[in-house]
Amino acid sequence: MSSTDTHQPNETRIVAEPDLPIIVITREFDAPPERVFRAYTDPDLVVQWLGPRRLEMRIDRYDARNGGSYRYVHRDDDGTEYGFHGVFHEVRPNERIVQTFTYDGFPDGVSLETAVFEDLGGRTRVTGRSLMDSIEARDAMLKSGMDVGVREGYERLDELLGGQQDDSADQHTETGS
Amino acid sequence: MSSTDTHQPNETRIVAEPDLPIIVITREFDAPPERVFRAYTDPDLVVQWLGPRRLEMRIDRYDARNGGSYRYVHRDDDGTEYGFHGVFHEVRPNERIVQTFTYDGFPDGVSLETAVFEDLGGRTRVTGRSLMDSIEARDAMLKSGMDVGVREGYERLDELLGGQQDDSADQHTETGS
Repeated sequence: MSSTDTHQPNETRIVAEPDLPIIVITREFDAPPERVFRAYTDPDLVVQWLGPRRLEMRIDRYDARNGGSYRYVHRDDDGTEYGFHGVFHEVRPNERIVQTFTYDGFPDGVSLETAVFEDLGGRTRVTGRSLMDSIEARDAMLKSGMDVGVREGYERLDELLGGQQDDSADQHTETGS
Repeated sequence: MSSTDTHQPNETRIVAEPDLPIIVITREFDAPPERVFRAYTDPDLVVQWLGPRRLEMRIDRYDARNGGSYRYVHRDDDGTEYGFHGVFHEVRPNERIVQTFTYDGFPDGVSLETAVFEDLGGRTRVTGRSLMDSIEARDAMLKSGMDVGVREGYERLDELLGGQQDDSADQHTETGS
């Protein structure tokens, strides 16, 4: 995996492993693992940040627990819908999420997605790995423009976490304020 | 993938893709896809064939449908138990099963398993693909002795399918005759 040490702390890094059908996405956030994990698992929060800004998101189901399943739809200005679905193999609180992922438009394409949450002392590093069944599928994914959605989504997550930052009173329910 | 054309029709072939963390297992059965698929999805049948002869199998759950989950245990003569679990990403009747797979003893190891059922005209070819996240994980799996369990399991499945062959009374639930 190529690496540079000049990146900003909260820069999104998207790297293909050289000889494996794997994409690794690394990102740090100015919030502890509990809060980042919650933003990944609570559908009321997920819907506020996942994906590029220009698409509207609708969640049909998002049952983020061991054995749960999910489906959501991104919709553009023309009304065109892009649906995605999968199952949660494991949801290990504040540490790790493993799920399958399929774009409805290509039902035979299944990737295995792992997100690991590392505590950096009040900050969190999230390392996501997408495992596909061929180098071609990996490269098609890289060329699909997914990087825009990933980067913008994480910027939106920064905003969501920033908005929550001083609102410790309301942690038991949702986002607060 | 290496290939020989001298194999027997019902020979089990276990092949590692040269540069990918994938194991491909191919096997043909003297039964139509409906019956083979049922043996893969009905827990009362699965328990009769999956795994090597020397281990006793217990199924805790086996909900073979989109979004279902499973857990089963193999137990040896000493009483040592080996548990496995995962979720079904997709169960497409008589055609395809995609599921995750984890050995309880190594919870961070997750593979993505795809089984495709091909109709050969009364016979069926099953192609299984196990996708892992590293070449090392693939090679460890190959060296684990899994091939014995796979081959013996498929021989037991032959026996199960053979035993069912004249049992048209029970065909109303699934296969038809």
